[in-house]
Order: sequence, then structure tokens, then C-alpha cells
Amino acid sequence: MIIDCHGHYTTAPQAHSDWRHDQLTAFLAGTGTPHYPSISDEEIRDSVESHQLRLLRERGSDMTIFSPRASVMGHHEGDVATSTAWSRASNDLIARVVDLFPNVFVGVCQLPQSPGASLDAAITELRRCVDMGFVGLNLNPDPSGGHWTSPPLTDPYWFPLYEAMVELDVPAMVHVSASSNPAFHATGAHYLNADTTAFMQLLAGDLFGTFPGLRLVIPHGGGAVPYHWGRYRGLADMLGKPPLDTHLMRNVFFDTCVYHQAGIDLLVKVIGTDNILFGSEMVGAVRGIDPTTGHHFDDTRRYVEGADLAPAQREQIYAANALRVYPRLAAQLGL
Amino acid sequence: MIIDCHGHYTTAPQAHSDWRHDQLTAFLAGTGTPHYPSISDEEIRDSVESHQLRLLRERGSDMTIFSPRASVMGHHEGDVATSTAWSRASNDLIARVVDLFPNVFVGVCQLPQSPGASLDAAITELRRCVDMGFVGLNLNPDPSGGHWTSPPLTDPYWFPLYEAMVELDVPAMVHVSASSNPAFHATGAHYLNADTTAFMQLLAGDLFGTFPGLRLVIPHGGGAVPYHWGRYRGLADMLGKPPLDTHLMRNVFFDTCVYHQAGIDLLVKVIGTDNILFGSEMVGAVRGIDPTTGHHFDDTRRYVEGADLAPAQREQIYAANALRVYPRLAAQLGL
Repeated sequence: MIIDCHGHYTTAPQAHSDWRHDQLTAFLAGTGTPHYPSISDEEIRDSVESHQLRLLRERGSDMTIFSPRASVMGHHEGDVATSTAWSRASNDLIARVVDLFPNVFVGVCQLPQSPGASLDAAITELRRCVDMGFVGLNLNPDPSGGHWTSPPLTDPYWFPLYEAMVELDVPAMVHVSASSNPAFHATGAHYLNADTTAFMQLLAGDLFGTFPGLRLVIPHGGGAVPYHWGRYRGLADMLGKPPLDTHLMRNVFFDTCVYHQAGIDLLVKVIGTDNILFGSEMVGAVRGIDPTTGHHFDDTRRYVEGADLAPAQREQIYAANALRVYPRLAAQLGL
Repeated sequence: MIIDCHGHYTTAPQAHSDWRHDQLTAFLAGTGTPHYPSISDEEIRDSVESHQLRLLRERGSDMTIFSPRASVMGHHEGDVATSTAWSRASNDLIARVVDLFPNVFVGVCQLPQSPGASLDAAITELRRCVDMGFVGLNLNPDPSGGHWTSPPLTDPYWFPLYEAMVELDVPAMVHVSASSNPAFHATGAHYLNADTTAFMQLLAGDLFGTFPGLRLVIPHGGGAVPYHWGRYRGLADMLGKPPLDTHLMRNVFFDTCVYHQAGIDLLVKVIGTDNILFGSEMVGAVRGIDPTTGHHFDDTRRYVEGADLAPAQREQIYAANALRVYPRLAAQLGL
């Protein structure tokens, strides 16, 4: 079995995106929120079948852990009420995809975060989504959209959410949204910077001493971290922290969203297969075909197949680790 | 010959650091700038001989391209006048190190940048330092210290500096200073994020179409970039840019400040030896000994020696590329 831990509904029906636009317009105008449009099952089916589902089948995956489009979570726009309505609409749409293709998709939710706001709304929405069968959440470490005004992930500000995550036994993927800062290209800088930043925040703190049951997936292959693994081992030493294996790597996992063979080779060599989950971010950040291989950049299964791994290690990356990190998925599958 | 392109004067005499502290205190109090202290040649000699010079000799390097300590450039503190006085003092100290050890050190300057300020003072200081024999500069893409309030490096804001760089035939290392944003650990997040961000800013623009003679060194092995080289090739394609080889890699270079063998192996494999300059960031970000090797993390020469390279390729990394990127150094050496 191959489980892709990192898929976004980047092809949601236009009416859904249009509503978001109208919602933000109404917010700025101070007028009432428009009614959410009617979207048919057929529209949803079409939007998935011709994209995620087709590619998943072509590439030989079995399941995708599926969440709303990350780049339009837009926590920096509107306020917590706007974000709550948008999160509910986006998560409800994911639930409908899951209902239509229950053997293929499993839900992960977007949270109604907002810069400076409490996490109460996020926790409420998380509980609602877990009740619907969702198995995890996307946590934005920078709801300001590239201005980084929130405290580090090790700050008590985040603890109520972590308490709920531990209670519900769901992991978070640490994933930012769009950049509202012209310095940061979203998928080319902000995403990877966030991955790197989050890991270093964790390294400098002791979050898993407080929450030993908390699990975080850092996407995009961990940003810069595996490439600079020596730097991080050295920084842990300089900061008087335990070795990374015990300090972080019982609780932190990286996905395989690294779009070339040499990157995946480094990832599996340096990090080891206990902490890697198969992911493609498909259909996502990079949609083209690599002229040097003739295959899609984000066809990450090819790189995992091409890596120097024993069959049991490949199986860890493809499914066993995901089932361990997302126990609610394992339970749903009867595993 | 082995030229280390990335050394900072992290061991400058205490009186120099104390003056900076007093200068900023006076700035905040609105009182006059204190007099710069007297620092003897012997103090300078001692501060270098027991650290950079000793390690350089132990590790078998010949020269270091040497600049003021990056983490205390502190462009976010004070104003452009404060930064100008601090830059002059710091660069003058580098000049004295170079005068004391002319066969070992060559100068690169810090610029008096300040958030929102024009680059006039930076250009004036660059010219002053080049007149003193300096061969390059450190350019901070985020003088706000982690708030990223400056326009991208492709913005015309920066063009007057680039014009001076092309005229003087000096390259810049793109290097941030300390982080004043609690989200970003300086050496574990802000530095690497800046490298990644700068590369993506360049990718999204056409700076080298405007300035074909401009050369930029992105330190710390290029941040996350080589590890995600497939992503960047794919993003160039999606953004309608030429292939990276022609779009950026005639003008952009990475150093070898990557503190483990697997990272350097990836760097040389993916980027190729035409665009890599030997660097160690010594004495710098990571000062400990790697328990898995028994050697200092930042002893990057060992990784270059351990990489799968032909002798001529190693020679490119050790010296030939640096002499090409820093032609004023080549001229000083009569090469």
C-alpha cells in the first residue's frame, strides 16, 4: 500500500473559490457574508477524477491524506470569524471528497487561525473535523502570511491546541499559506523557510518533553534541514540539547516532497526511514515535467523507487510510518 | 592553493564590541557617540592567531576572504549614521588584520545599510573599502533583522549598489545579520532562510539580464536550494524563465558551508563545481566537534576531500572559482 501524506484540494470547484473572494470583499466592505453556493457531487467528482485521482492511479498510489489548498488558507486575511467560515467551508468540501471516494481520500483539516487570535476556534474546528472522520490537521506557524508575528511553536500560546491534538491522537502537518510579504515567493521561499524555521524552533525548545505524544510532520522534505543536518546536530550540541534522535526525532517526521533524485537520496540517507512519510504535494507547487527525466517533477514515487532502500524500508516510507503517525487512519483501515 | 571565501572576524577584541554597545546606548539616549577605543596591533594579532589563523593552518588552508562578524552587523539597530560609524570601525579593523597578515587575509566589507534608507552610504563605504584593498562586500537582503521589510534583490532600490559593484568588479556575499524576530533563530533559521529567499528572488526576476557582470555568492551552501534543485528547476519552468544554468548560474555561486559529508556530496553533484567556492564560516555558527567523525563540524575541507571529485574539480572549488569571482584578489596575487 502507498499512502501519500501530502495532497491538497488545489482543484476545488470555482464556485468555492469565488465564494472566498466574495466573503473577503464583504469583510472589507463591512457587509454581510454571502451565502455559500450549491456545489454538486458531480462537480466535486470531476474536479478530483481528472487531476488528483488520475495522477494517483497513474503513479500507483493507493490513498491520499487530503487537505484544503494550503496557499489559499489565507489566515492573514479577514479575522478569526472570516477564517472560521472559510475553514468550515473548505473542510466540508474535503469531507465530501472523502465521502465520494472513501477508499482513496482521508481528510486533514485547515484551521481557522488568525494573527494574534486565540486558538479556541481552531480547536473547535479540529474537534468538528475529527468527528467527521478527519485524521489530522494543518497547522500554520505564521498566520500573518510572511511577517512571522506569532510566537515560536514552543511557546505556551500553542499549548491548548497541542493538548487537543494529544487527546484526539492526531498529528499536525506544519504548513504555511500564501505569502503577503513581497520578499517571499510562496512555494519557492516561504514554504521551505517555514519548514526550516519550525524545525529550529523545536530544536531550541523542549516541546516534546512537555508533550511526548505530540507528532508533527514537516513537509517539503523538511525544508533545508536534512541538507544541513550537520549544522543542526552541531547547534543542538551548542545549545546544550540532547542529540536530535531523542530530542526531536521521536516526534518529528519529514515528507518526500523533494523533486529530484539527489534530494531524496540525501533525505533517506541522512534522516533514516523511520521518520519519512511518502508525499508528493500533488497537484501542487510544481506541475511541470522535468526535461532531464521526462517525468513530472512531483512524481516523487519514482525517486523513492530509485533510492538505495531495502524493500522493508520502502514500505515504511510508503505506508507503515503514515499509519503510525496517523493512528486514526490505521483504525479506519482496520490496521 | 586553498582560499576560504567565508570567514568572519568573530573574535574581534572586546573593546570593539564594547564600543558598539556604547554607541547604541548613546543613540537611544540621544547623546554623543563615544570615542572609538585604542586597540593595539598585539591585541588584533592575538585575537586572530589563536583562532582563525591556527585553525586555518591546522586545516591546511592558505587564505581567508575575511569580513566583519555578520551577526553583529545589526542593520536593524540605530540608523544609517550609526550603521555608517559601526561599518567604518568594523571594516577598519578588518583592514588592520589584513595589514598584519597580508598573505593570509583579504578584506570584504560590511555595509552601512539601514531599513528604508537609501544605499548612498553603503556605496560610499564600499568605495572607501575597495580603495583600501578590499575585494568584495557582504550585502544584507533584510536589514530589518528578520522582518523582511526591504524589496526583493531584483528591485531597482538595489540597482545603485549593483552599478557600483559592476564598476568596481567586486562580488557580494548575500548575508543577513542577527534576527530581531523571535520566530527566527539566527544561525539555525534566519541565515538559511535568507539564502533560500535570495535565490528565489533572483529566480523570479531577471537581474542578470540587467546586470550581466554582477556576481553574488549565496553562503551556507545556498540554504535549501541545492537540496530542492528539482523544485527550483520546475519553478523556473512554471514562471516562464530560462533554465537555471543560463538564467542564474553564470552569476550565482554557493559556498561549502554545509557541515556534513552527505550535504557536500549533494552540493557538488547537483550544482557542479563551476559554481562552488570553498568556505567554512570559521570561526562561526557551529563550533563543536561532530561525535560521529571526531572532527569539527565546520572543518569543511574534510568533506570536500571526501567528495567524489576529480583533482581539477577540487581545485576549482578551492581556488580557481574564488579567483574568478573575486578578480581583485587574483590581481593582488598576480594571478
